[in-house]
Amino acid sequence: MKTHDSDTKETYSRCLQRMKEIAALGAAAGLLGWDQETMMPKRASKARAEQSAALAGVIHERFIHPSIGEMLRQLADSPSDLAADHWVNVREWLHDYEKATRLPTELVKELAKTATLSQRAWITAREKSDFGIFSPWLKKMIGLKQRQAEAYGYEDIPYDALLDDYERGMTDKLLRPVIEEVRKGLVPMVAAIGESKLRPDVSFLARSYPEPKQEELCRELMAAMGVDEKASRLDRSVHPFCCGLDPTDVRITTRYNKKWLPQALYGVMHESGHALYEQGLEEKHSGTPLGEAVSLGIHESQSRLWENMIGRSRPFVSYIFPRLKKRFPTSLRGVGPEGFYRAINRVVPSPIRVEADEVTYNLHIALRYEIEKGFIAGEVRVDELPELWIEKMKRYLGIRPKNDAEGVLQDTHWAQGLVGYFPTYLLGNLYAAQWWHKLSKDIRVAEKKISRGEFGPILDWLRRNIHRHGRRYNAMELVERVTGRPLGASYFLNYLKKKYGRIYGVKW
Amino acid sequence: MKTHDSDTKETYSRCLQRMKEIAALGAAAGLLGWDQETMMPKRASKARAEQSAALAGVIHERFIHPSIGEMLRQLADSPSDLAADHWVNVREWLHDYEKATRLPTELVKELAKTATLSQRAWITAREKSDFGIFSPWLKKMIGLKQRQAEAYGYEDIPYDALLDDYERGMTDKLLRPVIEEVRKGLVPMVAAIGESKLRPDVSFLARSYPEPKQEELCRELMAAMGVDEKASRLDRSVHPFCCGLDPTDVRITTRYNKKWLPQALYGVMHESGHALYEQGLEEKHSGTPLGEAVSLGIHESQSRLWENMIGRSRPFVSYIFPRLKKRFPTSLRGVGPEGFYRAINRVVPSPIRVEADEVTYNLHIALRYEIEKGFIAGEVRVDELPELWIEKMKRYLGIRPKNDAEGVLQDTHWAQGLVGYFPTYLLGNLYAAQWWHKLSKDIRVAEKKISRGEFGPILDWLRRNIHRHGRRYNAMELVERVTGRPLGASYFLNYLKKKYGRIYGVKW
Repeated sequence: MKTHDSDTKETYSRCLQRMKEIAALGAAAGLLGWDQETMMPKRASKARAEQSAALAGVIHERFIHPSIGEMLRQLADSPSDLAADHWVNVREWLHDYEKATRLPTELVKELAKTATLSQRAWITAREKSDFGIFSPWLKKMIGLKQRQAEAYGYEDIPYDALLDDYERGMTDKLLRPVIEEVRKGLVPMVAAIGESKLRPDVSFLARSYPEPKQEELCRELMAAMGVDEKASRLDRSVHPFCCGLDPTDVRITTRYNKKWLPQALYGVMHESGHALYEQGLEEKHSGTPLGEAVSLGIHESQSRLWENMIGRSRPFVSYIFPRLKKRFPTSLRGVGPEGFYRAINRVVPSPIRVEADEVTYNLHIALRYEIEKGFIAGEVRVDELPELWIEKMKRYLGIRPKNDAEGVLQDTHWAQGLVGYFPTYLLGNLYAAQWWHKLSKDIRVAEKKISRGEFGPILDWLRRNIHRHGRRYNAMELVERVTGRPLGASYFLNYLKKKYGRIYGVKW
Repeated sequence: MKTHDSDTKETYSRCLQRMKEIAALGAAAGLLGWDQETMMPKRASKARAEQSAALAGVIHERFIHPSIGEMLRQLADSPSDLAADHWVNVREWLHDYEKATRLPTELVKELAKTATLSQRAWITAREKSDFGIFSPWLKKMIGLKQRQAEAYGYEDIPYDALLDDYERGMTDKLLRPVIEEVRKGLVPMVAAIGESKLRPDVSFLARSYPEPKQEELCRELMAAMGVDEKASRLDRSVHPFCCGLDPTDVRITTRYNKKWLPQALYGVMHESGHALYEQGLEEKHSGTPLGEAVSLGIHESQSRLWENMIGRSRPFVSYIFPRLKKRFPTSLRGVGPEGFYRAINRVVPSPIRVEADEVTYNLHIALRYEIEKGFIAGEVRVDELPELWIEKMKRYLGIRPKNDAEGVLQDTHWAQGLVGYFPTYLLGNLYAAQWWHKLSKDIRVAEKKISRGEFGPILDWLRRNIHRHGRRYNAMELVERVTGRPLGASYFLNYLKKKYGRIYGVKW
């Protein structure tokens, strides 16, 4: 046994070295991406595409190398020789390795090429608001995604294979009932709110808010939330994002709108939620699955918890409003904290997902989920998409998009081959509500602390319960482990009912 | 012949693809370096070191792959089948490949490891101003550099093998006579200037110059010089540098000193000279030797030409001084263009190389060149370095450094294993003077144009004569081709005599 044991240790150590090298190259690729969105000179895009492609090629080649498979299978064969932590890494590496090696190289290349061309067609189509320009590409992409799902393999339906790329371990069997429950809960809620006579005044949010003061405030807020200044950056980009290269190097971006205060304020809170997760991953596990985020849904739960459960709460308004007043006394003249609270929580159905509020947001996702699942199952045809979209928008949100650009063409995901990705946004909201429910019980005076800007106990709770585990548990296991209950839609629906019932004077 | 020809084409095309991929990875590595000095959060240095090491390893591994050698040798065997441009690339690739493959992997690793540790020891030694802390590392490094020279191979002396790493084709046989001529010309010049009664007043340069206005001016100057704004960036870093990732992506940095106007102004001019060279390389050759700078010396000739021949000239002062006056009216009160011109051209021996003026600068290099050559030849012992340094400083510049920190420990080059690098600074000055001599003949009213801020004709001349050739000619060939004369010290010495004779009222 001694020999076996030390063989295993030696193999693990060799494997670890290779994997950490690949992770380091992945971080370099991440930097190329970050730079492209924030710093890169305009004319450099062609050269950057070549740099990114070259690095992606190297990473893929090294990762799918047969010697990696041999080491991993050897390690997986003797789990008892491995320390518990090492076993988690081997399990996750093997999962990723098997997924990656199941795809024929020809399909990987075809997917990458089609994504680029299809993305280009989508841009033109959106500019011209003409779905016809994009539809042949969408058809092609769906065909490829169906092939990808078959190559991955699945137990139940092909869509599951794609889901797993973004939400490790998620299946439609688990997902469908919660999405349906959410949809059935939200549709009447949106309707009831629409009938309420209480209409928050949001006009003051569109007064003048100079950018430098907004930025100053955002930086102050990041620091208050606990984002480590020595391990992060805040920059500007067209589309805000968070880029975690390492727990010691997490970069977020935002955009400032002088005429819309919530844009940067809640954008930065959202991205800081992501950043805190990345910074909360354990440094000693950096470059291994134990040092990686579980899933996109769990990541989104962190950003949504900070942005919505905390950021749009009444106690948080008590904290932030005096700070806003101090910086923007003229624009906030005549406004009080209660008016501010109501304004930032206005519910109004909009055709655009990224502009949606907490209540209507998940209906945008339910719609996309139903359609993309239909695509992969071959039950929805691309040609009927625009009509189906309009029909569902009407049914779920009671509105009709003016044109393709604000309808089927608004999101880039499908053009890029991201099918099975949308549900992670919805899951993020559900996880967040479930964490919030538990966290509010565990930290007795959480609300009082928030109103004083003392976010430390909340961050500690998130670190202890979620961040530090990396990929030790998958999302569903983590939910159950932390909250004692499986994932459910009720936490989210109850949270909304309580909050918006008060704001809109509705009894459910 | 047909078959041979198409075989060759096919091999070239495969080789090109591999080499361009390696170059793209090199650019990614360049971005890691740039980011580290400009943007990276403080705590990320450990992770960044791993990322850079991983990428450097991949690049080296791919470049020294035997299949590369096979292709290159096959191509080199049938030069007549290759287009002229392709032949240049093959010639340069083969040169680089052979140098890289001559080093045993064990030596490459040892050099990298020693450089890191030795650099660390150097930092401590400099902080404590104690050469004893650094000397064992310097000894070790010199031993490794001697081994490296032997592994590379050389015709005449081992030092040549190291020189070639930075100045392709340069040998000590070519270098020694010009350095000696420069030294013999400069020592009496420095002495004569020291005896002059004319002492320019520089006190006003140390008045208050707010950073934002300095930056505004620097950006205006970059644009006037012809740096393409859509293909460049200007940022801040502790040590200014230029990083060319591609002709479409060239980034320079500077540091602003509120109390020393020339710092950023001439720093940006210097780095912009480098940037113009990088942007002047032909985009169609990007990622191949024809799209790369010839040598460090030629690179430095571009920065020095803009910084000194142009930037510190009387016509340039006519252009820039009114712009300075407008931005800093209070600090420049009572100062005229002539006074400004004299101030920025003050000659004063200083122990520190990077603070040296045009006249004394090359003596700092001559000193280092003599010592490092002695190290490699085994004629100078590390233990006698401090004494030798002081003795030469006294003899060449008439001064004595206060301590090790401002003496032997001031530069990081040797700690990092950069031996044979210093001469490229001196060569840059000589090349620049020789270009300037020819350029002033070719562009009749160059001075008038400079005084109007019309730098276009100068940039065109540099592009046509130097930039566009990439590595087609080596430095010495380029000098002869462009100026019709081999490299000589007289252009530089005559330039200085004419300029400083006037400023200091000295007859030579």
